[in-house]
Amino acid sequence: MARGRQEEIGIALLGLGNVGLGTFRILEAHAKDIERRLGARVRVLHALVKDAQKSRPKGLDVTTDPEVIFGDPAVQIVVELIGGTTVARELCLRAINTGRHVVTANKALLATHGEELFGRAQAAGVDLLFEGAVCGGIPIIRTLREALASDRIEAVIGIVNGTTNLILSAMAEEGSTYGAALARAQAAGFAEADPTLDVSGMDAAQKLCLLAQLAFTARLFPAQISVEGILGLEPADFSLAHEFGYVVKLLAIARRPPGGPLDARVHPAFVPRQSPLAEVRGGFNAVLLQSAALGPSLFYGQGAGAMPTGSAVVSDVIDACRDLLAGVAGRLPMLCAPNLADVALSPPGARQGRVYLRFTVSDAPGVLGRIAGVLGDKGVSIASVLQRQPKAGEPGATVVVFTHVAKETDVRAAVAEVDAFASTRAPTRFIRIEDEPPIGPAR
Amino acid sequence: MARGRQEEIGIALLGLGNVGLGTFRILEAHAKDIERRLGARVRVLHALVKDAQKSRPKGLDVTTDPEVIFGDPAVQIVVELIGGTTVARELCLRAINTGRHVVTANKALLATHGEELFGRAQAAGVDLLFEGAVCGGIPIIRTLREALASDRIEAVIGIVNGTTNLILSAMAEEGSTYGAALARAQAAGFAEADPTLDVSGMDAAQKLCLLAQLAFTARLFPAQISVEGILGLEPADFSLAHEFGYVVKLLAIARRPPGGPLDARVHPAFVPRQSPLAEVRGGFNAVLLQSAALGPSLFYGQGAGAMPTGSAVVSDVIDACRDLLAGVAGRLPMLCAPNLADVALSPPGARQGRVYLRFTVSDAPGVLGRIAGVLGDKGVSIASVLQRQPKAGEPGATVVVFTHVAKETDVRAAVAEVDAFASTRAPTRFIRIEDEPPIGPAR
Repeated sequence: MARGRQEEIGIALLGLGNVGLGTFRILEAHAKDIERRLGARVRVLHALVKDAQKSRPKGLDVTTDPEVIFGDPAVQIVVELIGGTTVARELCLRAINTGRHVVTANKALLATHGEELFGRAQAAGVDLLFEGAVCGGIPIIRTLREALASDRIEAVIGIVNGTTNLILSAMAEEGSTYGAALARAQAAGFAEADPTLDVSGMDAAQKLCLLAQLAFTARLFPAQISVEGILGLEPADFSLAHEFGYVVKLLAIARRPPGGPLDARVHPAFVPRQSPLAEVRGGFNAVLLQSAALGPSLFYGQGAGAMPTGSAVVSDVIDACRDLLAGVAGRLPMLCAPNLADVALSPPGARQGRVYLRFTVSDAPGVLGRIAGVLGDKGVSIASVLQRQPKAGEPGATVVVFTHVAKETDVRAAVAEVDAFASTRAPTRFIRIEDEPPIGPAR
Repeated sequence: MARGRQEEIGIALLGLGNVGLGTFRILEAHAKDIERRLGARVRVLHALVKDAQKSRPKGLDVTTDPEVIFGDPAVQIVVELIGGTTVARELCLRAINTGRHVVTANKALLATHGEELFGRAQAAGVDLLFEGAVCGGIPIIRTLREALASDRIEAVIGIVNGTTNLILSAMAEEGSTYGAALARAQAAGFAEADPTLDVSGMDAAQKLCLLAQLAFTARLFPAQISVEGILGLEPADFSLAHEFGYVVKLLAIARRPPGGPLDARVHPAFVPRQSPLAEVRGGFNAVLLQSAALGPSLFYGQGAGAMPTGSAVVSDVIDACRDLLAGVAGRLPMLCAPNLADVALSPPGARQGRVYLRFTVSDAPGVLGRIAGVLGDKGVSIASVLQRQPKAGEPGATVVVFTHVAKETDVRAAVAEVDAFASTRAPTRFIRIEDEPPIGPAR
């Protein structure tokens, strides 16, 4: 047993924003418990900040000079929480190159420079841990890395962006427009002034890459993923979803059938109301795994926030401490060669599945028949249909079609044809229906 | 780095029933992946069975003689899957005493002899891992042990018994009686011929003890827990639950307010339909954690079965292999002194909460008024009430009361008084309403 070889482990926090402060507070509040569990004390020796004059928690040594941190041999673990991809990259590389373990909650950094950072960490024999980078406090990285090391994962389906889930929840529950829901989320501090990264789906795509790399040991970059954000969703889509037993969610999906290509995408989807994913409201996150032995499992919790993310960061710090005390490190698969392999990706449009289509058309006889005819010509079979007179202010009548399982290219071709009709008054809304894998009553 | 010190790790399976075969199959199917992740091969050297003549998977050496296993120095990990508490205890002790790591999925063994086994394992410096003992393939032990090492857990609320959840789901969804639902579960192989351990709540209590010991580092035995099973629930309770927006679930609950006593109990409860626990159907299990930093989180998956439990067992085997390769062990907190402390337990009846009461009374004027009067006298305030004429075959009219938050002793006293009335035709049904902690839209 390696316990007790070392009395104190020094760490440095790079950045002292919300998550940095949360991390510091958790380390302080649980200091005794952590010491009891580890057999060694964890001490925050330094925190790197931009402005040394700001008021800080008592007992915390702050500095604006990285040399103070890298010049202190007592610093054995560096926790990167400054965000961004330039300075963060440099400081992480420096920590790795000087033999320190690194903990980060910076998904953008890993999505951009992950291969380089993991490769260096692997070569240096240090840990690079990132539980806080995906889904805040949900221990999904740990689960993928350890508990399911014994299983073959077939699908990862997640609600991994709290901001968009908050906006979609408000649109569903209060009938808000996208603009009103976004403005409210911004006013409450839950959405950035520039919300592009979240609402475009790109934040979710970055997280999906990390999840999919772990789950499928496949190299994957956000630019390879088909990504649709939540812009353009309208109140009518939410009320129609509700009417037909669905909820609209922004899903991050990665599936890999044995021997088949990897299908990775981020887009809004209709989720059946009885799916546990439908119950994920507000800023919560959830990840549904489908695996060969375990079957379906779901992990659910707060996706962001100082304390949830801080608790994930601290759990990584404790892991790094354990490795330090045991004199082992880099045992966990790093997301770089040779652990990751290139895999074939499903081309966009290869999906076969059910789709919701909302056509806006002139209120004239024969229009529904023409739409049905085009769908039929393309081999797209209709499961249910609804036609409605235009309400005041609407550009036309509404025709809603829920398809049976169909090839996405066929549905897209039919939509393009209908959108070219003179009778079509607005571009057709196309939303995929995701009802697999079911988590249901079967045992 | 300790990798590569050892080319092969030998394991022995004690028992080759469903879970044993599942474990063997997963180890075989994922052999290459496990070897790649560990840097060493895992090989099942022996399996201890009762009947050596039965047909077995090819390539598996079976024996009826434990000496074959304990006499083989290549066996470094012993996996106990025979069940029961006598032979299993002896073999586990022997494995520990001969310096082998032990993996078990035997919750009854740990609930009965846990303190002795963990104490011996701690003294011997070997692992005693038990992910498969609670909630099959849900990595809840790992989560409590590692990810939340950085957090303070306030409550553990679980649906941890698949058999009762299957029966309750059938009663809710098909309106079955308890007897019919049980018979069907037995016929389908999901309930034992003698279902007592499951339906009495005792299996759930054993699992709750393991969860609460980890979560609160508190000594806890099933005999200290207030346990009510699912017997006596009637179709009327399910239809009334549905009518008022609830679902009936058998919950295992352990809560510990900071500095306060530990409140641990197992009983059927009304759960709000929008709670994620309400969506846990059939043989699925779920555990809801409430913790200081992370807030609420939920872990959901298959609670039993050869492959889910086998996958949990294999994940423990991999952990034990990692410790072997790293030359460390017993790093994780063992559930024995000095890691566990005695704590004060909430006395039965100390609960304050909402309750559903179903009175069966003679269909005479003034009865509702008398019930309301007794409740009022005891300080129990009524949130909603429903009175119904007796249906054919029912012994009397039904009065249903949903209380506001009330002391359980006060409600019990009121019920005892009402049950003594001549107008009361059957014992009053008392079911707690559990609507905390909420997992809701707040971020």
